[in-house]
Amino acid sequence: MAKSPENQLPLKSFGYAAKDTSGTLSPFHFSRRENGPDDVAIKILFCGVCHSDLHTATNEWGFTTYPVVPGHEIVGVVTKTGANVKKFKEGDRVGVGVMVESCKECDSCQQDLENYCPKLVLTYNSPYYDGTRTQGGYSDFVVVHQRYILQFPENLPLDAGAPLLCAGITVYSPMKYYGMTEPGKHLGVAGLGGLGHVAIKFGKAFGLKVTVISSSPNKESEAIDKLGADAFLLSTDPAKFKAAVGTMDYIIDTISAVHSLTSLLALLKMNGKLVTVGLPSKPLELPIFPLVMGRKLIGGSNFGGIKETQEMLEFCGKHNITADIELIKMDEINTAMARLVKSDVKYRFVIDVANSLKSS
Amino acid sequence: MAKSPENQLPLKSFGYAAKDTSGTLSPFHFSRRENGPDDVAIKILFCGVCHSDLHTATNEWGFTTYPVVPGHEIVGVVTKTGANVKKFKEGDRVGVGVMVESCKECDSCQQDLENYCPKLVLTYNSPYYDGTRTQGGYSDFVVVHQRYILQFPENLPLDAGAPLLCAGITVYSPMKYYGMTEPGKHLGVAGLGGLGHVAIKFGKAFGLKVTVISSSPNKESEAIDKLGADAFLLSTDPAKFKAAVGTMDYIIDTISAVHSLTSLLALLKMNGKLVTVGLPSKPLELPIFPLVMGRKLIGGSNFGGIKETQEMLEFCGKHNITADIELIKMDEINTAMARLVKSDVKYRFVIDVANSLKSS
Repeated sequence: MAKSPENQLPLKSFGYAAKDTSGTLSPFHFSRRENGPDDVAIKILFCGVCHSDLHTATNEWGFTTYPVVPGHEIVGVVTKTGANVKKFKEGDRVGVGVMVESCKECDSCQQDLENYCPKLVLTYNSPYYDGTRTQGGYSDFVVVHQRYILQFPENLPLDAGAPLLCAGITVYSPMKYYGMTEPGKHLGVAGLGGLGHVAIKFGKAFGLKVTVISSSPNKESEAIDKLGADAFLLSTDPAKFKAAVGTMDYIIDTISAVHSLTSLLALLKMNGKLVTVGLPSKPLELPIFPLVMGRKLIGGSNFGGIKETQEMLEFCGKHNITADIELIKMDEINTAMARLVKSDVKYRFVIDVANSLKSS
Repeated sequence: MAKSPENQLPLKSFGYAAKDTSGTLSPFHFSRRENGPDDVAIKILFCGVCHSDLHTATNEWGFTTYPVVPGHEIVGVVTKTGANVKKFKEGDRVGVGVMVESCKECDSCQQDLENYCPKLVLTYNSPYYDGTRTQGGYSDFVVVHQRYILQFPENLPLDAGAPLLCAGITVYSPMKYYGMTEPGKHLGVAGLGGLGHVAIKFGKAFGLKVTVISSSPNKESEAIDKLGADAFLLSTDPAKFKAAVGTMDYIIDTISAVHSLTSLLALLKMNGKLVTVGLPSKPLELPIFPLVMGRKLIGGSNFGGIKETQEMLEFCGKHNITADIELIKMDEINTAMARLVKSDVKYRFVIDVANSLKSS
């Protein structure tokens, strides 16, 4: 007889799960595995609310298995370590991002690019190697193999630091990989949400000129005065757009909706690079002439490996980079999700898990 | 009074021009400038027939000014040099490719990337700085600034070497720029025409495994037995296609027709690179998931600068790389163009200009 989520594994856990395509999150009792020799148990203090959580809760990408506990921007403290664990000890401030397991043997894993491992296990909504499904950080604790755990710099606050584990690494990794870090160069950030607002901060820390590209005029003062962008391009203003054509070296495109690549490519200089980290559910139109005539490229990138995520956290510690967050209680998650649908958040919701998740 | 093409410049020239959108080429008397101090006059011996010649002759891209003398794979011998010309002397075997002038001052020109100069003057169908229009190599001679002239390696035949000046550099340059030259890596060549067949040869010279990707089963033996490809992937065979998914490091996409990027992206490994050098007249559909999930990139590239073109010719000299050509007479050009429309050429027509262009 199939065991229920509550008792298929030895440890009782509790969180909030989506149970159907309504995406509504509600209390959920489930279970987690006992600590193995390479495992670390973490009491969850905070968890960021990523757009992927919303996509998954509502099965927008079509591969959700219910019930699902979302959450992959997890921070907390170590409560238990396995016999083989040397890097972490009880009380350490740690994080868990988008993945919790990989094969450790493929080319990607060998190159510290576990995020591209074909046998990658995501932090939630993924089949785990023991046959159970992974459940994420909208919950009281998590048990994770030590390889996939990040040490949190002492000077970074855990709540505002949590979104670095997905939003942060998702923009940091392509900036490094595609060489978008040369001081003095001009970075365009398309879309000012969870990813975009962190991209501004990385851009400034790398010494770039940063322009936010947005269709919302009311974001201008926020972008410049609060987030430190150098300029704001209202993409719907033809005169301003025309003046900006051919002025950017790099663009980070964080827009998840279907949108025009033609206009973004026009903003790039010769040899310009456009990196897309949003995930529109339909193909975009790609004009070939501007790619060929300007030797431009469009690249993708999917969060980052553990080594690079740790490097990113150290970089954030050094430059005091965190996300701008709205701290919410666990039972406010459905309101928060409704606001997220409307992009009504500055700029990331973070759940105060330890202080507000109450088992009923 | 506006001067006629025949006498607006001091030197009488003769060639074949397209005079309307029919694209039919016929004898045409026009004129060229007198040699300036930096100019080199070249008696044209051979000229390759590029797809761009056809696109331009029929105004398919919408920016043709008639009459136009096509031809930008020009080889010949130097007949006269200006006072400042030290690199070339009478009798030298030289080539002229896609461009004949640029500003020499912009960032692109300073970096030997004249091909991306905003004031670039193409070899034909381009406004020249003196107000006249450039005319290409389907003609008896040409006068060109020394900067835009290539020295031809002694061991390369001029007729089969001519297509290197456009087809050759157009695939060589992106292979170098995007780092597609690591020995042992796997290159896919999509489309087996003028560009594709040279890409195979460069791929082999760089030490790559080369697979031709084509929807024409009858190209298999040609690709492998004659052109030296290691493998042939019939893209319309689902089983073979499936087996090839995720096996290629790089793809050079030479297809000019609208086609599926989704299937080409599927053939790439993680971190794979697809470079498009064809110029489909409509946008292609770009699926974002494979780019993001596999950190893949799509890049464009537009022929190459003079320094790199010279480097490419030396490389071809060293590796004995030329195009596979069909030598035609000047008055066979319209038949050749009709065959080119049907891709019925192995793999480049080259006009035997000096022996067949007769002034009527």
